[in-house]
Amino acid sequence: MKNIKLIIEFDGTDFCGSQVQTRGRTVQGEMEQAIETVTGQQLRIIGCSRTDSGVHGRNYVLNFKCETTIPPDRFLYPLNDVLPPDIRVKASSEAPLDFHSRKDAISKTYSYTFRSGRVEFPLTSRYESLEKLDPSYEKMKEAASGFLGTHDFKAFRSTGSSVQSTVRTIHHIDIQEADGRFILTITGNGFLYNMVRIIAGTLIEIGAGLRSIDDIQGAFQTLERSKAGKVAPAKGLVLESIEY
Amino acid sequence: MKNIKLIIEFDGTDFCGSQVQTRGRTVQGEMEQAIETVTGQQLRIIGCSRTDSGVHGRNYVLNFKCETTIPPDRFLYPLNDVLPPDIRVKASSEAPLDFHSRKDAISKTYSYTFRSGRVEFPLTSRYESLEKLDPSYEKMKEAASGFLGTHDFKAFRSTGSSVQSTVRTIHHIDIQEADGRFILTITGNGFLYNMVRIIAGTLIEIGAGLRSIDDIQGAFQTLERSKAGKVAPAKGLVLESIEY
Repeated sequence: MKNIKLIIEFDGTDFCGSQVQTRGRTVQGEMEQAIETVTGQQLRIIGCSRTDSGVHGRNYVLNFKCETTIPPDRFLYPLNDVLPPDIRVKASSEAPLDFHSRKDAISKTYSYTFRSGRVEFPLTSRYESLEKLDPSYEKMKEAASGFLGTHDFKAFRSTGSSVQSTVRTIHHIDIQEADGRFILTITGNGFLYNMVRIIAGTLIEIGAGLRSIDDIQGAFQTLERSKAGKVAPAKGLVLESIEY
Repeated sequence: MKNIKLIIEFDGTDFCGSQVQTRGRTVQGEMEQAIETVTGQQLRIIGCSRTDSGVHGRNYVLNFKCETTIPPDRFLYPLNDVLPPDIRVKASSEAPLDFHSRKDAISKTYSYTFRSGRVEFPLTSRYESLEKLDPSYEKMKEAASGFLGTHDFKAFRSTGSSVQSTVRTIHHIDIQEADGRFILTITGNGFLYNMVRIIAGTLIEIGAGLRSIDDIQGAFQTLERSKAGKVAPAKGLVLESIEY
C-alpha cells in the first residue's frame, strides 16, 4: 500500500467547488474518476481544503492510498491524459503512510486579485473581480496589518459551516498594486468559511472610506458580522499553496 | 453621420478568428450583432487586423459609421450589456470621418507567451503555449535582434493569403523571461499570415539548438519556408496594440 501525494492546479470557473456534492462538477469528483480510470480502483481522495464554487487552486494538495505498480513520481502523466483541461497534476510523489493532506497542513496561503472599474477585461476576468468602489491602495495596505496575529475571526465568516473554534492566526498579509490590479496575499494556520473573501471585502470598504480602520478591531471585539465587510466575489480567490 | 472608434479586448479561445466567415463564431460577427441590437442598424465594422482562430486581442481597434444619438464616449456601456463575456469594449470615441482602423494603422504590437514543460497550467494555459523543447533564453534573445529592420519575410509566412509585397519592417523585438515563462514582444509596420507565430517558432528552434542563428539571414536571402521554424500555437499570441 502506498500513500500518493499529488499537487494539482485547477481553474475553478466551471466547478461547483472542490468537494464532492450531490450535484455539480467538482474537483474531487473529476480527480477520483481519473484515478479510477488509471488504477482501476474506486478510491476516496483526501483534499487539503474545501474550496468554494469559482475559487481556483494553484498548488492544491491531495493524497490517496492505493496498491499500484505505477512509480509515484510518474503518476501525473496517465492522470493528465484523462483529466479535463481545467485540472492538471503538476507533481506526484510517495508520502509517508500517515501523511494526511488536510490534517497535516501547518498553514495555507491564498491570493485575492481585484481591479477597480466598470468593464471586465476578458483576458484576465476569470481570475480577478471587478470592484465598483475605487479604494485607496495606501489605506488598504495600512489596514491589512490589523489582521496579523491571533484573533477570534467569528465576524469574518459566513454562516453555513460548523467549526469548534473561530480563533485563527494570520502569519502574513500584504497587498500589492501591479498593472492596475490589487493583489492581496494572506497566510494563516487556517481559514473559516469565506474568511479570505470577507477580509478582502473589508479592506476594499476601508480603502473606499465606507469603513474605518478601527472597524477591524471592533469586529474582533464584538464578533459581529456587521462590523466586517462584504464577501468579495469567488473568482478573485486562488489557493496558492499549503505548507506542511 | 459619425465614425465611432472602439477599442476592444477579447479572449480568442472560443472564436474562429476575428473576421466573419461562412461558419463559426467570430469577433466581427459578435460585434456587428451587438451594434445592431444597440443601434437598430445592420452595420459593417472595419477591424484593424484579421486574427486567427484562438488568437487573443487586448487593444483591438475597430470603427463603424452610423447615425446615432448615443454619445460616442458612452457607446461602450450598452454594447457591453449585450456582448458575450469573452468580448468587452474598453473605450469608445468619435473619430474623424475618414479614419479607417486598418488602413491608418502605422504599426502593430504583438506578444507571444510560451513555457517549457510537459504539463499545462490551467490558470494560465489559455494564454500561453507549452513547448516540449527547452530553449536557451540567451540564445533566443541574441537571435531575436536578427529580425529587426526591413526584410522580405516571404519565408516567414504560411500560404493561404495573397499580398502584393512580403517586405515588412520590424521596429522592435524583445524576449523576456518571467515566472518560468518567455514573453516575446514584437512591433512592426505589418505582419504576414502566421508571421509572428513562425518568428516565435524559429526562435524556439534556435534556442533549442535545432537551428543556427544564421538561419534567419539565410531565410531572408533564400526566401525558403524551410529555412524558418515551425508555426507556434495560436493561443500564445495576443494582439497587444495598434499604433496610429
